[in-house]
Amino acid sequence: MIVVLKPQVTEEKRDELISWFKELGLGVHVSVGKFQTILGLIGDTATVDMDLIGSLDIVDSVKQITESFKCCNRKFHPDDTIVEVGDVKIGGGNFCMIAGPCSVESEEQIVTIAKAVKEAGANMLRGGAFKPRTSPYDFQGLKADGLEFLRIAREETGLPIVSEIMSASDLPLFEDVDVLQIGARNMQNFDLLKEVGATNKPILLKRGLANSLKELLMSAEYIMAGGNEQVILCERGIRTFSDYTRNTLDLTAVPMLHELSHLPVIVDPSHATGIARLVPSMAMAATACKADGLIIEVHNDPRHALCDGAQSLKPEEYAKLAEKIRAILEVVSE
Amino acid sequence: MIVVLKPQVTEEKRDELISWFKELGLGVHVSVGKFQTILGLIGDTATVDMDLIGSLDIVDSVKQITESFKCCNRKFHPDDTIVEVGDVKIGGGNFCMIAGPCSVESEEQIVTIAKAVKEAGANMLRGGAFKPRTSPYDFQGLKADGLEFLRIAREETGLPIVSEIMSASDLPLFEDVDVLQIGARNMQNFDLLKEVGATNKPILLKRGLANSLKELLMSAEYIMAGGNEQVILCERGIRTFSDYTRNTLDLTAVPMLHELSHLPVIVDPSHATGIARLVPSMAMAATACKADGLIIEVHNDPRHALCDGAQSLKPEEYAKLAEKIRAILEVVSE
Amino acid sequence: MIVVLKPQVTEEKRDELISWFKELGLGVHVSVGKFQTILGLIGDTATVDMDLIGSLDIVDSVKQITESFKCCNRKFHPDDTIVEVGDVKIGGGNFCMIAGPCSVESEEQIVTIAKAVKEAGANMLRGGAFKPRTSPYDFQGLKADGLEFLRIAREETGLPIVSEIMSASDLPLFEDVDVLQIGARNMQNFDLLKEVGATNKPILLKRGLANSLKELLMSAEYIMAGGNEQVILCERGIRTFSDYTRNTLDLTAVPMLHELSHLPVIVDPSHATGIARLVPSMAMAATACKADGLIIEVHNDPRHALCDGAQSLKPEEYAKLAEKIRAILEVVSE
Amino acid sequence: MIVVLKPQVTEEKRDELISWFKELGLGVHVSVGKFQTILGLIGDTATVDMDLIGSLDIVDSVKQITESFKCCNRKFHPDDTIVEVGDVKIGGGNFCMIAGPCSVESEEQIVTIAKAVKEAGANMLRGGAFKPRTSPYDFQGLKADGLEFLRIAREETGLPIVSEIMSASDLPLFEDVDVLQIGARNMQNFDLLKEVGATNKPILLKRGLANSLKELLMSAEYIMAGGNEQVILCERGIRTFSDYTRNTLDLTAVPMLHELSHLPVIVDPSHATGIARLVPSMAMAATACKADGLIIEVHNDPRHALCDGAQSLKPEEYAKLAEKIRAILEVVSE
Repeated sequence: MIVVLKPQVTEEKRDELISWFKELGLGVHVSVGKFQTILGLIGDTATVDMDLIGSLDIVDSVKQITESFKCCNRKFHPDDTIVEVGDVKIGGGNFCMIAGPCSVESEEQIVTIAKAVKEAGANMLRGGAFKPRTSPYDFQGLKADGLEFLRIAREETGLPIVSEIMSASDLPLFEDVDVLQIGARNMQNFDLLKEVGATNKPILLKRGLANSLKELLMSAEYIMAGGNEQVILCERGIRTFSDYTRNTLDLTAVPMLHELSHLPVIVDPSHATGIARLVPSMAMAATACKADGLIIEVHNDPRHALCDGAQSLKPEEYAKLAEKIRAILEVVSE
Repeated sequence: MIVVLKPQVTEEKRDELISWFKELGLGVHVSVGKFQTILGLIGDTATVDMDLIGSLDIVDSVKQITESFKCCNRKFHPDDTIVEVGDVKIGGGNFCMIAGPCSVESEEQIVTIAKAVKEAGANMLRGGAFKPRTSPYDFQGLKADGLEFLRIAREETGLPIVSEIMSASDLPLFEDVDVLQIGARNMQNFDLLKEVGATNKPILLKRGLANSLKELLMSAEYIMAGGNEQVILCERGIRTFSDYTRNTLDLTAVPMLHELSHLPVIVDPSHATGIARLVPSMAMAATACKADGLIIEVHNDPRHALCDGAQSLKPEEYAKLAEKIRAILEVVSE
Repeated sequence: MIVVLKPQVTEEKRDELISWFKELGLGVHVSVGKFQTILGLIGDTATVDMDLIGSLDIVDSVKQITESFKCCNRKFHPDDTIVEVGDVKIGGGNFCMIAGPCSVESEEQIVTIAKAVKEAGANMLRGGAFKPRTSPYDFQGLKADGLEFLRIAREETGLPIVSEIMSASDLPLFEDVDVLQIGARNMQNFDLLKEVGATNKPILLKRGLANSLKELLMSAEYIMAGGNEQVILCERGIRTFSDYTRNTLDLTAVPMLHELSHLPVIVDPSHATGIARLVPSMAMAATACKADGLIIEVHNDPRHALCDGAQSLKPEEYAKLAEKIRAILEVVSE
Repeated sequence: MIVVLKPQVTEEKRDELISWFKELGLGVHVSVGKFQTILGLIGDTATVDMDLIGSLDIVDSVKQITESFKCCNRKFHPDDTIVEVGDVKIGGGNFCMIAGPCSVESEEQIVTIAKAVKEAGANMLRGGAFKPRTSPYDFQGLKADGLEFLRIAREETGLPIVSEIMSASDLPLFEDVDVLQIGARNMQNFDLLKEVGATNKPILLKRGLANSLKELLMSAEYIMAGGNEQVILCERGIRTFSDYTRNTLDLTAVPMLHELSHLPVIVDPSHATGIARLVPSMAMAATACKADGLIIEVHNDPRHALCDGAQSLKPEEYAKLAEKIRAILEVVSE
């Protein structure tokens, strides 16, 4: 950590500050410049409150040098993590195609869609049973029944299943779900993160609407610090002033997260745009910038979907898109 | 709800759409303009998926006319809600001054601060026992012990206590807390909102970092739909491109929320700015635009605070500020 | 335009408003709903102040139905515009590769780079002679000399040249420049837009850092209303809370602008990210979502560049990228 | 400037970098930490490209220590600047009340409003003659005639006049205008800034919609570097995800700018909110956080205003507000 003092600081005040840092168990390198004095703090600065130091009268600014995320940091773990879900691998050159409806609506619906997306090339099935909805008056999901229908769809197709968990108290119901999804609104529900960190299931962690990449990585850190290292990061759009799409898909996050972390990074173009006809373009773009997979909403009857029909592709549209994706994958993986 | 059709839509397609709306139990007013046809949907449009309709080929745009929040809507409840916490009233002309440390650190600390802020004019005590922290390696709060120390401080001073709850499973521990706070990161933790909606305690609901005012009101609606109408809204800064303060305090939310809703609106200048020396200015500004109260961090030794020391006022600074606040209140309440 | 009245409005007040609209020469369709009355305004609503109407006591909300951009609107001009710059075509299936240094630094520099990018497959040369810099103390460009060096580079390579114009008073100096660039900071410098709208040169119009797509199209409209229909739109990143890259590249703008307008849309991944090592990923992503071209910074010695060296590719990196771009183009243009 | 090297950097590479810095005329302090080596650069680092250094293979991060703004920096000029416009003073405890219509519409209109706002306590008159409008089809202002009417209003009332200049070529027309306003959209129109920096007139510089405080100060620097030190900063709302008001008024900018700079800071609640009924609240809030003045839109007939009627107060509303403002001023200036 670097502490820059204000120009006019007296030697006495400076020495008092240095003593305080030493009390905290830190080493201090003093560098006296022409205009300003700079203190370099050495040791375990994790417990030092940067904001507090920055607010002191004699301090001009404080700069952190080392990142606070460890487990997911590529610096300490240079090789790509490969998450395995049954036979499906994600990361390290393995591309995954997750598809399915926003909500599970019936056994027939989910089985039909599962078969269709498998046929088109998907290798994992998504479907919401517990739905986070802005309004208490909106459809909240089929809950336990929805999870049961997902299991049936897995039996019929062999596709592993992904579903969102909203509360740690529901964990027993998710016993038989292959990948637990943490939604954007829960990215900083730290209690939930700790609980899923204590399971041995792969976690699909979505970036919050207003969260930085470092915060996303710190949330992954909550899960990994609990011993669960099977985390898949997911970019799904951020909230900006721009309002022609539901959110603004931040694709540059893909190469940047790959640089910062060894975890796989997938993209959700359906929630990012909220508009089905924009999904294929953004899915292709995500593939071209080397995402490790895509999670895409597919519904056999978007017009009657109970939730997010506007952003769902029809199975035949998904099949056509999947072909393009494979062609782009060939170009970028050369 | 208003549905605007594209210019070139055939009569047949139009009539098909109208039939579908009628199937959904809606009345449809057709208005044929020079360039475009507009459909006005009448009836219970709450279950209609606006986004889906907007995505249909023949539809140009969809506009919602009526708000989806009911319980907290001033249209249906013109008089100000006054939340009562013991003898303290909030809203409808009653200004509340909540103060205290970010975290409860010890019995002595919280009792000392409680006495100091009461002396300065505060009428409620805040203190965190369960702390949402971005990093799993940061101090997470004293938990049950912290709540116990808060109760002791209440006994000593008579000040009602406010503390943040992060998980519904902690509710039994909060039995004796006067006001439950829902933090910004949990504003859309819908399971938690439902659970506190089932209690009979006043809820202090903080606006999320990237949430619109309508989303804040929808979250209040989750609580109120459960039967608990004692909700206090809190503006605490939003996330924008501007990075010189921790967040951007959106004070215009105060008069706007007062217009949209009958619930009281308070402001948290400490978390909004993250910088103690900016807190007095913003507290005075919040009072001048008619907030119903302030929640401000006060610590007797900010330099040694375990959390957010940078944004805490010292008791003597708080006392000086409280005087100014009272003087401004006199001006604005005339 | 749709005007929704508040629930409790008297008939008298309503009729007064209707009379006023009729005075303004508009037709008014009245639709009385169960809860609210809706007025549909018909005729030339371009001169009506939506914000003013929305602020009236008896009005709940106002919704615009028709877009205010005409010349660049795909509704009135369904076919893609193809901009021609000498032999180079942009739009309608024609992909353009613009490359070159941020600033022209010397004759030798620009000629060397021009040859290198042409060799790699670029078909247009960019180079700044007038530089908009945040600080008055930064290098401001070689000005007339820079434009002269660009002309020499064109002579040597045959590549048409693109350069940014910051002030209408410089127009005579740009007589011999092939494409005039309007930078992001000048996107709403309306006087400059009018002046370049009076020329017969193609205009490369960059989206402002905080401008919506509609505002970008309204700025194109300023140029086109002056008679110059050769406008190329350019997405180059917007300003958001996310700060790991200089700006947030909003790639979804590409398919969305293609839907709203017939003008070609190119992408500038260099300014959007500000980091050379992220440029190839984002250039490939832009190609995959069907941008009509790329404008990329290339410098033969980024470490000694006078401006924006951090975001410049070396010629050999650009050549490698150009190959990938061509391969992706083949996939997406099938 | 601080340069942090990556952990694994070889001594050879490090020494090469140090040599390069020395070539650039800089002193280098080397501080070898347990995990990382830090270089402190001493001397004139203004010409060093931070982004470029940050992009080098062996560099982890670069931190700037000293601000790049000089003339407007409070560090080098601790006393408040007081801008004088005739008898009116702004800054250093002098509060100014600027009021008037968005656009000058006629001699009668501007004279009537000028008299009314003077009566209410305003000490300067605003009025737009050249209007920046998003659409080329909107009213663009009365131009030279508008300025003439403003002069007449000044004669009648003695109020100095403020008007926006959009292009340096209009400067001769503004010869007799007391304060030149640079609008938000032109905050980084650097050519215009340089030109007004060469005049001897006070400049009212509005913050751009997506500009940081440092960028605002750098734009003030452009003006001051030209020798004109009479700059008034103006906060008028920034663009965020929040869309219930036209912009988000960032009032914390007021105390923060006062800390960073000695220049006076005023607030424009009319453009920030775009809604007349929110203006009084935000004007009072701005006064309470110690702005040096307010610029407020007042129109005698907002319903027929040619521009921005929605945000204009009526003269009687302004008079009532002005009284409140004076009462708050008494509280905060004690």
